[in-house]
Amino acid sequence: MVWDAWGAPSGHKPLPEQIRGLLAQVFGVSGEPVTRRDEGDVPLRDSALTPEQHAGLSAVVGTEHVRTDHRDRLRHAGGKSTPDLLRRRVHTPQDAPDAIVFPADHDEVLALLRHCAEQSIAVVPFGGGTSVVGGLDPARGEFATVIAVDLGRLDTLTDVDPISGLATLGAGLSGPQAEELLGRHGLSLGHYPQSFEYATIGGFAATRSSGQASAGYGRFDDMIQRLRIATPTGDLDLGRAPASAAGPDLRELFSGSEGTLGIITGVTVRVHPVPETTAYQAWSFPDFATGAAALRTVIQAGAAPTVMRLSDEAETGLNLARAGDIGGAAVGGCLSVTTFEGSAAHVASRSAEAGELFTAAGGTALGEAPAREWEHGRFQAPYLRDALLDVGVLCETLETATTWANLDNLKAKVTAALTESLTAGGAPALVMCHISHTYATGASLYFTIVGKQASDPIAQWAQAKRAAGDAIVAAGGTITHHHAVGADHRPWMTAEIGDLGVRVLRAVKQAVDPTGILNPGKLIP
Amino acid sequence: MVWDAWGAPSGHKPLPEQIRGLLAQVFGVSGEPVTRRDEGDVPLRDSALTPEQHAGLSAVVGTEHVRTDHRDRLRHAGGKSTPDLLRRRVHTPQDAPDAIVFPADHDEVLALLRHCAEQSIAVVPFGGGTSVVGGLDPARGEFATVIAVDLGRLDTLTDVDPISGLATLGAGLSGPQAEELLGRHGLSLGHYPQSFEYATIGGFAATRSSGQASAGYGRFDDMIQRLRIATPTGDLDLGRAPASAAGPDLRELFSGSEGTLGIITGVTVRVHPVPETTAYQAWSFPDFATGAAALRTVIQAGAAPTVMRLSDEAETGLNLARAGDIGGAAVGGCLSVTTFEGSAAHVASRSAEAGELFTAAGGTALGEAPAREWEHGRFQAPYLRDALLDVGVLCETLETATTWANLDNLKAKVTAALTESLTAGGAPALVMCHISHTYATGASLYFTIVGKQASDPIAQWAQAKRAAGDAIVAAGGTITHHHAVGADHRPWMTAEIGDLGVRVLRAVKQAVDPTGILNPGKLIP
Repeated sequence: MVWDAWGAPSGHKPLPEQIRGLLAQVFGVSGEPVTRRDEGDVPLRDSALTPEQHAGLSAVVGTEHVRTDHRDRLRHAGGKSTPDLLRRRVHTPQDAPDAIVFPADHDEVLALLRHCAEQSIAVVPFGGGTSVVGGLDPARGEFATVIAVDLGRLDTLTDVDPISGLATLGAGLSGPQAEELLGRHGLSLGHYPQSFEYATIGGFAATRSSGQASAGYGRFDDMIQRLRIATPTGDLDLGRAPASAAGPDLRELFSGSEGTLGIITGVTVRVHPVPETTAYQAWSFPDFATGAAALRTVIQAGAAPTVMRLSDEAETGLNLARAGDIGGAAVGGCLSVTTFEGSAAHVASRSAEAGELFTAAGGTALGEAPAREWEHGRFQAPYLRDALLDVGVLCETLETATTWANLDNLKAKVTAALTESLTAGGAPALVMCHISHTYATGASLYFTIVGKQASDPIAQWAQAKRAAGDAIVAAGGTITHHHAVGADHRPWMTAEIGDLGVRVLRAVKQAVDPTGILNPGKLIP
Repeated sequence: MVWDAWGAPSGHKPLPEQIRGLLAQVFGVSGEPVTRRDEGDVPLRDSALTPEQHAGLSAVVGTEHVRTDHRDRLRHAGGKSTPDLLRRRVHTPQDAPDAIVFPADHDEVLALLRHCAEQSIAVVPFGGGTSVVGGLDPARGEFATVIAVDLGRLDTLTDVDPISGLATLGAGLSGPQAEELLGRHGLSLGHYPQSFEYATIGGFAATRSSGQASAGYGRFDDMIQRLRIATPTGDLDLGRAPASAAGPDLRELFSGSEGTLGIITGVTVRVHPVPETTAYQAWSFPDFATGAAALRTVIQAGAAPTVMRLSDEAETGLNLARAGDIGGAAVGGCLSVTTFEGSAAHVASRSAEAGELFTAAGGTALGEAPAREWEHGRFQAPYLRDALLDVGVLCETLETATTWANLDNLKAKVTAALTESLTAGGAPALVMCHISHTYATGASLYFTIVGKQASDPIAQWAQAKRAAGDAIVAAGGTITHHHAVGADHRPWMTAEIGDLGVRVLRAVKQAVDPTGILNPGKLIP
């Protein structure tokens, strides 16, 4: 990825004329993009890596796999939240890890962590670099030196069991790489978060990622059968069966551990045959509450599609549910997108059952087209955000989850908190929302905000984010459904798991990482 | 329950004549039941509870809720494994907790644990008393005194959310009590392990129970949305949403913690409307491998019934799959039982899809009757075991799980280990097996053994159990799929989770129970 935006340069597109007009009208911004800094001109904080440290790391992974050049440091300087991208535009010098180390395999990761613990070098595990919660900040903690450990060389499919539907994937494989390797065996993982193009298998596990097909294939943590983990005090190979009653499930301690308890080096995941067929069906509901009740009915009946989403009135109105087609013909009410994957018989049976429930719940079938358009544009939103940031528009997302009974309340409270904060200076702001992950007992809420950038947009968003986080906690939601905790959600972790929960996490940390080198400043308060 | 067998006296039935004949023929046992000891005549180890300790406990829960009488101590002396039951028949004196304490609610449990930590009193949490792995042994550890904490007074349904399908149940509610309370709201939990009649909500959570309808409603740990836990160092209220990416899932540390990390006092679980309809369908497969492949196809297609089971040739031949009808007309090959619950439309759609897959996979439909018979007798097996033990026959079960690809291998290895050990003395033994829990990636294996009791049947089973456990570990299975660890599986825990996994558990234990009063000798090596 480029250093100061999402994706490869080829993915970057200027804003369509229609959107520029809309922005001028609503926010009073000109729509003329600012010129971004050339990466070669951006001063970096000097590397604190000593020659002795360089030699020590080289002894573990080989000299060519220890990098301190400007380009590599800049590309491992953090994640891709809006504050991250805004900081890239203004901070001088840019902070960055002192070196980037590329271990070859599990054993090298293990040796590296032991070495770093002995040498007091902080470690930030690095997969696809797509964190939107500050999970990759090169924080030093109490240490003078911090390195990023890039897992890109752990990129193999080491085992395939088509009978059981299991595959063991290296932590550094990106979503497309994993799908490509599995595809050669006629298999698919089916995990498509918005970060799919860049995010990695290890990152999916370490952050409890959830993909757009979660209704069909589950969250990534649901897919994990076995985890291989290296820590400074040894390694773990967890998960001997599809299910077990052999005590606490320690996989669930390391899923979501965000590099603070160890580095996940390999993941054995549930896979499935490449779907024989996919059916697409979009629906319109008169309002969000009616649509949400329909989604609830379908998932509680056990008739869930593979993908099942619902945009609220604001998001539907702006056509933001179909990021590839913003400004196209708008759909009234609330748009819901569903897809059904599997054998022809399964798709036919499931889509018929869900369709009847949707119709009975007040839905109007819109045909295939809006669902296909959504799928076509589903990885486009981060590129659009870059184009908006370029023209002085603030754009960011946040997400939460709660029970069905509390969904409307939580949505209203978060919308109010964001709107109040963002419009406090008198500028207008749009707050949109969709459901993208459903469960028998509740659903996620994903908010997108668009507003005019204030003079200090980083502070502007920090204030809105604080207001939203406080509102989420007060209204009984979880501080994050699938973006993870990182640095940005850490202030709310005690509210999430309680004092004793935090003490338990610290005790585990002490057992596996007694010197505290692993990802300082993240997750654990 | 009675002190030395399963269930209430009313559930006890003599062996049918047909079975007695079979036993005489195969094992050379007479079939004449031995006379069991009258509980009043059984000497108990003297209670070590001092008057000061009695007064201290009484100050927390009230004098009437601290019991030291013979009857109560005998009924809290342990679980219901075959070794437990055999020990009740021969040991003199019987070991038992020094007192049984009945706290009223979460706050009293919390106060009680703090008190016991201060006073160095070991605590064995006690729900339905149905452990089959020594999880309730009144082990004292390093302490002079051990009490059982009976959670029977935590027996209320404190919250119902029919929209989200959630209910908060007291830890002490038994399966039937919970279903009765939920039924008043038109709801059901749908968790039916064989211990259903006596086991409790807290026990289900603390042991990662799995019910016979797991294909439809999931394991008990899947059903848990929120856990309330008291520990000697404070309490926890975990689970703010249907799903979350807010770090490690600490619920999964306390699910399966078997009273070693705290006492679960309340559980918010996923519930569903009482099913509109239930369809029953039994199938016959020519052999176990064909049947297992059929079950695999159905669950991997996403077409799973609510209940889906498969007995192997031996179990089918003895008709043990239908414990209420042993000795009835035998079904050839391998019997599979399925049920489908839900709305009429869901049941119709799902049973049609599964039926086509079963037929294509070589199954022959046997109609409803065998499935209904199975359901009718599904809680009978433990009573049958008592009748067999009475006539000098050894009967016990054990279980494991593995991937589909490894299923035949694991089944063969465990069968061989059990058979070799049990027949070493020249006596015949039967080893039967069924699949009762299926997952996309694998399944459980549940073994039942029947043999002639040796002169020391406790040692006889201990040796067979050791051989089976070693075979499970060597063949890559989990040491327990749903019976939990307790004392009996503890020797294999290091093989299951590794040295570092054990150190992590100990670190968590140290954080929540620094004096180590909670359930000494269980789970953690």
